[in-house]
Amino acid sequence: MEDRLQSLIRDIPPLDARAMQLARERLGRLTKPPGSLGRLEDLAVQLAGIMGDSRPRSGRKVIFVFAGDHGVVREGVSAYPQVVTAQMVANFVRGGAAINVLARRAGADIVVADFGIAARELLPQQGFVDCSLRRGTGNILCEDAMTREEAIGAFLAGYDLAAAEIARGARMVGLGEMGIGNTTASSAMVAAFLNCPPAEVVGPGTGLDADGVRRKAAVVERALRARSPDVDDPVDVAAKVGGLEIAGLAGVAIAAASRRVPVLVDGFITGAAALLAARLAPGVVPYLIASHCSAEPGHRVVLQALGLQPLIDLGLRLGEGTGAALAMPIVEASLALLNEMATFEEAGVTDRG
Amino acid sequence: MEDRLQSLIRDIPPLDARAMQLARERLGRLTKPPGSLGRLEDLAVQLAGIMGDSRPRSGRKVIFVFAGDHGVVREGVSAYPQVVTAQMVANFVRGGAAINVLARRAGADIVVADFGIAARELLPQQGFVDCSLRRGTGNILCEDAMTREEAIGAFLAGYDLAAAEIARGARMVGLGEMGIGNTTASSAMVAAFLNCPPAEVVGPGTGLDADGVRRKAAVVERALRARSPDVDDPVDVAAKVGGLEIAGLAGVAIAAASRRVPVLVDGFITGAAALLAARLAPGVVPYLIASHCSAEPGHRVVLQALGLQPLIDLGLRLGEGTGAALAMPIVEASLALLNEMATFEEAGVTDRG
Repeated sequence: MEDRLQSLIRDIPPLDARAMQLARERLGRLTKPPGSLGRLEDLAVQLAGIMGDSRPRSGRKVIFVFAGDHGVVREGVSAYPQVVTAQMVANFVRGGAAINVLARRAGADIVVADFGIAARELLPQQGFVDCSLRRGTGNILCEDAMTREEAIGAFLAGYDLAAAEIARGARMVGLGEMGIGNTTASSAMVAAFLNCPPAEVVGPGTGLDADGVRRKAAVVERALRARSPDVDDPVDVAAKVGGLEIAGLAGVAIAAASRRVPVLVDGFITGAAALLAARLAPGVVPYLIASHCSAEPGHRVVLQALGLQPLIDLGLRLGEGTGAALAMPIVEASLALLNEMATFEEAGVTDRG
Repeated sequence: MEDRLQSLIRDIPPLDARAMQLARERLGRLTKPPGSLGRLEDLAVQLAGIMGDSRPRSGRKVIFVFAGDHGVVREGVSAYPQVVTAQMVANFVRGGAAINVLARRAGADIVVADFGIAARELLPQQGFVDCSLRRGTGNILCEDAMTREEAIGAFLAGYDLAAAEIARGARMVGLGEMGIGNTTASSAMVAAFLNCPPAEVVGPGTGLDADGVRRKAAVVERALRARSPDVDDPVDVAAKVGGLEIAGLAGVAIAAASRRVPVLVDGFITGAAALLAARLAPGVVPYLIASHCSAEPGHRVVLQALGLQPLIDLGLRLGEGTGAALAMPIVEASLALLNEMATFEEAGVTDRG
């Protein structure tokens, strides 16, 4: 399993520089002042490089919504009880959650998967993929979140799910998640990877007050001291203080990048997954597109560490992949502009001298 | 005509406070942490107030792309020749411009209108509305942009066009424009209305270099001194230093607000039109939605003066209504969330205590 992981993370090709140059040249000939489409032009060029095509087309879009539970919720780090993870998965399956609404509007499919939900008895009979290796992680104050084998197993489960959807025609993927307590696990991972004080990345999550945030930061600090993950070994960080759904999403990112498929990152938790993926395989980074900037304070830190600039900033802090779904129309708009606008020559418009 | 203007600007109802409160209450019952959809929640509440319905629905969307020419281009204030205004209108009619691509993606119709294009002989036979009262404005360094009657006539033409589209079912309108030289006219209007130095609002437009920007600021400063518009009389400002398409777009905004239809403002020029509308009828402001923040420096000043916060910030500086088209899916997403998400009760999800 360790061997398979090592071979998969070596599979990511560099962006296609020639496709990027041709796309950039075409953007310069379209009927608009040069550069006037701002970041949509950079995005179109990035997508050309990702897809290896100077006129890249959109296609099927899939948002992976991975759900997992976290033993650390016993420390009072969340405003909601653990049972909500399973209840929300049932809501995803019935189509009543925010991600359902936004994915429908974006024309994206969603793939919901159980990456270790505690209250399995509350899950519906079908409508999601079972990738559960255990019923939630251990309480990171007292024990490792999971074993190294479980961390790699979750990564590979995510990888294989994404590879299968891409084989079925997905041309763009989004990362989404649900898991009461997973901002705590994400904070621990991010603080470990970036070697920064937990207080700088811990936030209110689903709605803690200031006291709650301080308590949560103290929990993360004690957990990091107790577990002391090896930051030079990303799998160790995921196993000791991470989450099963987070490891799974890192697998999605690497599967997509290996297949020249762009990856829309959502908020703080998927940002932690992207950071894990980047530590495993730095070549994944050019394939990442930051959809939005979350209100969760640690997200800005993650985006900066990855060198990503978000497309939208609307103060969302819901997760589920909602920011990724909202950004998909913007990403597709950048492709449509590159492909469908007339050039100065075609339109008979006078270019400046 | 002056009488008709005066009666029209008194027609704007206040937002529906009851619909807003019901929408806010419903948002609090949906399966998500309170407030976690950030500005999408505020947007949904604003739309409930605008449409007078606690569960407002989207419908037909129309972007008004008004094109006009500007005599001040003789002073070398633009990187492109005047003929491009007419050529781009032909491009709009053929469907090859950025606004065509983005409006198609957003599912919006566009209404292209000639509000005084100089090179009329280059226009296509059909596919746009003729609202031309003269062949472009006067050079504001030497003469008034237009007469008071022409300014009111342009306003009323825009008003009537919008009223007709709303009567045909438009439920959301966007403001767009094309006009070589119209950032200069907009700068003059904005500097006059906000009583600020032209250098603070003048920018590169379609692509002036630093010397060009300084020359343009000097032109605006001299024009304002020479014309000395009466800032307490918005029509006088439009007539002396404005643009026909800008006056027309102010008419669109006021027609929409009077009919409880939200108005998506685009960039700097449509911002100047919104500011003109707000000076004519302050009640229009709650109906405005700032779609994006332009790279043109004066736009931020206008948004601040109107108290508007843009939905997206991607460094666009193209105009045409492109930002409005890009924001439409976000506006519609906020309505879909309000209408389609399940409540905690419906979904059987445990709310926090």
